[in-house]
Amino acid sequence: MRIGVVAPAGRIDEVVAARAMAFAAIAYPSVDLIFHPQCYRTDGGHFAGPDSARAAAFLEYANDPAIDALWFARGGYGSNRILADVIPNLGPAAKTKSYAGFSDMGFILGALYARRIGKPVHAPMVSSINNSNGGDAVIARTLSWLVDKDRRWLEPSLGKQPTVAFNLSILNNLLGTQWMPDLTDHVLMIEEVSEALYRVDRMLFQMANATQLKGIAGVRLGAISDVTPNTPEFAETPQQMIERWCKDMKVPFLGSADIGHVRTNKVVPFGLV
Amino acid sequence: MRIGVVAPAGRIDEVVAARAMAFAAIAYPSVDLIFHPQCYRTDGGHFAGPDSARAAAFLEYANDPAIDALWFARGGYGSNRILADVIPNLGPAAKTKSYAGFSDMGFILGALYARRIGKPVHAPMVSSINNSNGGDAVIARTLSWLVDKDRRWLEPSLGKQPTVAFNLSILNNLLGTQWMPDLTDHVLMIEEVSEALYRVDRMLFQMANATQLKGIAGVRLGAISDVTPNTPEFAETPQQMIERWCKDMKVPFLGSADIGHVRTNKVVPFGLV
Repeated sequence: MRIGVVAPAGRIDEVVAARAMAFAAIAYPSVDLIFHPQCYRTDGGHFAGPDSARAAAFLEYANDPAIDALWFARGGYGSNRILADVIPNLGPAAKTKSYAGFSDMGFILGALYARRIGKPVHAPMVSSINNSNGGDAVIARTLSWLVDKDRRWLEPSLGKQPTVAFNLSILNNLLGTQWMPDLTDHVLMIEEVSEALYRVDRMLFQMANATQLKGIAGVRLGAISDVTPNTPEFAETPQQMIERWCKDMKVPFLGSADIGHVRTNKVVPFGLV
Repeated sequence: MRIGVVAPAGRIDEVVAARAMAFAAIAYPSVDLIFHPQCYRTDGGHFAGPDSARAAAFLEYANDPAIDALWFARGGYGSNRILADVIPNLGPAAKTKSYAGFSDMGFILGALYARRIGKPVHAPMVSSINNSNGGDAVIARTLSWLVDKDRRWLEPSLGKQPTVAFNLSILNNLLGTQWMPDLTDHVLMIEEVSEALYRVDRMLFQMANATQLKGIAGVRLGAISDVTPNTPEFAETPQQMIERWCKDMKVPFLGSADIGHVRTNKVVPFGLV
């Protein structure tokens, strides 16, 4: 199986790529991990090359019938900036692939799902190989899904209802745009990292009031990690907030989800599995 | 003229209220500044009393025919949390008043403008009396507009086109919701404070892609102040970003606007003046 790696937002180092390839060679001998040289480029501080180069690398691999799946190198910021160049130019070969990543990659997963192109998958990215103690095990979840459709690392609540998973900031930034998918009857899982709690509450307001989210089946709360300190302290916990906003939204709060910017982050294929 | 003061988000101190009343008594003797006791309450760390108290105070003053205008005490976070209780319950007396504030108050100004209730006005709030050197002159802009329709402190580009002004984060949080006003043929002024530049770029993506903003006449850039440091540094300036996103959006970038979380922050009555 040939898995292409591109970096629609931030770059990775060649060393990280080499480590991921070494691990895959041993643990998944059937896999050929192909890193696009664009992964190592830099531009504007934040980006793995200019928008045009990131879009071109994505299109090259997505439209290549000899590549079976796309795996995103890492998050950061910037995948939103290539949507307009990428999404309308995806051809037949792009429509059968899986696309695996999360965090900033939610822009791409969401836009693909909005057009029902391919199989977007919330899953750990290549850069997680760098996690202290056990990065191998983290990226193995994504590889196990892409290679074997191994259900062991799926988020444990997945079952009868179509589901999606988003970073809350990215979901918010998709709302009101053409890139936001129709999530009628879907379970929506959200997670967040490095935000103050009042901002999380403000983002949940937008979720609860979003016209495009009327009709979702329910909400699950992933990890709200590395909360940014803020004075005064917010009086509610993330769970209390989301229960209140779900009540306002008149959709059930379904409990927790094992996703987020945390080591345990599980796999959530968009839709039904 | 009786101007009622309420605090839909954060509280103010009695000392601040006393200072504003003292200034108004001398500079605007015709004005009776009436602070609702709710302004001094606290709840959940962030709020000037619980949501119910903030909504009740707003409704009490907005629906009182003996009060000529509402002026918001300060920003912070939380005015979004009272919209659902406030907006549907505004009666005839509320429909002729001006409502003056900015920053977090953009939730209220936007929702009022969406329903074409009263006259929302982007303007300095009571708490600006506390600005070091010259807080008096800052709040005088708002009072001059409310009392005399004094055009000296209007944002200088205001003229032939209907205009609105928003904090970019607040605008983003309104997008995709029922609280977002129709801004067809309007000039949109935006400002931001205490955000990293990559986040400003991400918010501008949402503005540029928002279905509800198709048809605006143009965009003006207010102050992007107290930018939060971020590594790596973002390569573009706010002006470069907004010019790029306006091009994507196919609306003209009209230049700067003298608004924001800065001392010079001018008055922008929503619509035509």
